[in-house]
Amino acid sequence: MIPTKDMTPHVPVRVEEIIAEVIESEKLGVSMVHLHARDHHGAPTYQKEVYADIISGIREKKPELIIVVSTSGRNFQEFEKRSDVLNLEGKLKPDMASLTLSSLNFAQSASVNSPETIMRLAKMMTEKGIKPELEIFDLGMVNFANYLIRKGILEPPYYFNILLGNIASAQATLMHAGIIISELPADSYYSITGIGDNQKAMNALAVILADGVRVGLEDNIWLDRERKQLATNMSLIEQVTRLAKAFDRPIAAANEVRAMLNLPGVQRG
Amino acid sequence: MIPTKDMTPHVPVRVEEIIAEVIESEKLGVSMVHLHARDHHGAPTYQKEVYADIISGIREKKPELIIVVSTSGRNFQEFEKRSDVLNLEGKLKPDMASLTLSSLNFAQSASVNSPETIMRLAKMMTEKGIKPELEIFDLGMVNFANYLIRKGILEPPYYFNILLGNIASAQATLMHAGIIISELPADSYYSITGIGDNQKAMNALAVILADGVRVGLEDNIWLDRERKQLATNMSLIEQVTRLAKAFDRPIAAANEVRAMLNLPGVQRG
Repeated sequence: MIPTKDMTPHVPVRVEEIIAEVIESEKLGVSMVHLHARDHHGAPTYQKEVYADIISGIREKKPELIIVVSTSGRNFQEFEKRSDVLNLEGKLKPDMASLTLSSLNFAQSASVNSPETIMRLAKMMTEKGIKPELEIFDLGMVNFANYLIRKGILEPPYYFNILLGNIASAQATLMHAGIIISELPADSYYSITGIGDNQKAMNALAVILADGVRVGLEDNIWLDRERKQLATNMSLIEQVTRLAKAFDRPIAAANEVRAMLNLPGVQRG
Repeated sequence: MIPTKDMTPHVPVRVEEIIAEVIESEKLGVSMVHLHARDHHGAPTYQKEVYADIISGIREKKPELIIVVSTSGRNFQEFEKRSDVLNLEGKLKPDMASLTLSSLNFAQSASVNSPETIMRLAKMMTEKGIKPELEIFDLGMVNFANYLIRKGILEPPYYFNILLGNIASAQATLMHAGIIISELPADSYYSITGIGDNQKAMNALAVILADGVRVGLEDNIWLDRERKQLATNMSLIEQVTRLAKAFDRPIAAANEVRAMLNLPGVQRG
């Protein structure tokens, strides 16, 4: 979504680059991939045709991988654009899609997700059998998730991604992580990530206590806190697998995660 | 900002109504008034001319009252409109102005306050000698306030309004209030309010431990949780004064609050 080739040559942008990295990441133990599509100029695109190319390329080789697509409003506000990718059907249908549960500020800009847009996206995902990846940046987003559950708009089990360390959201501290986790609804799974310099510490915290780890260049392009060495997605994943090994925490296979989240079984390409 | 005469006949909308309520509220112990201007149709307006009429009407009778104007982006996005009221000078200059520290969702709509807009508003307030009323709805907004302080954009002492109970923000719970309060910077004063049904409980909490209480029809139009009895601003303020009396907490006079916040002394009209 955010990094460009100017910022880091390691960000995969073309369809073939993205597919190749996903296949490579699976070998390191990744079970779920969060995809952002780009157009021919490397700019973010919402178009389902580009997602279709990426998804078919991944499923041809790794059909069990859980594919999460983006409905982000950072670049496109219109509901029809944001939901375009949810119209993919059959073998091209994504397993999950991102759903950010409020409007918020990032360092440089606002990300607008109105209550109406969130509810329309959530209902469409439920209708299509695409599970929301519920993105939590601050306390209020947990409350809004619980509200959507009371309204019957979300179906269990729920999958949350807790993103900590954004400048205008909850911080990468134990207090903030702890209070958010304590308020997640029953029948939830959650991953944790840190934004920017906080990524590694929050990945380590996730290895210790969460259900999953979210990691990658979307949240942080550096391997070290001193920002001297550019990361690759693979180097970031390897950092997590080393942490998991050191903590003796086994990594779930994609099919095990499918079973936990009640996702459809493996669809052979 | 929000209530209309259709929702409650008790909301003051015309300039004379607003002035009369402010004068009345002062008698009950109010030291600081948070103003929203309306046009001839009762709709929110950003225009400094309307604020000028309200401010001159108040200062003519109660020059010591601390006047806080709104720079809300809920109805107007353009910086020039949001900052229009900050251009009032001399006897018409507001003492303080609202500054919401991130984008957020309310129940029905998004409220967009981009980082750039926030920083421009904050800088303009500092230049003009108008103290920001820092509005905190969730954890991330405290972090952004601390960021602005590190950048030298805000000047102490800081005044925070903590607004709890919005559907997509921090809730009206002791954990949420406590963690937010614990992260306020040194040299801060803060008030607490609850939105909707939470107003009375959060007002009571504020009486016990905060520096101030924010109360009024902007946040809640009902006197009771059962929503049978419409409140007036006066009945809501009286509820607070009863709580303060029962808790033996004295109420600061406007000039005492001016001294705490390092605001200019009384300007006679």
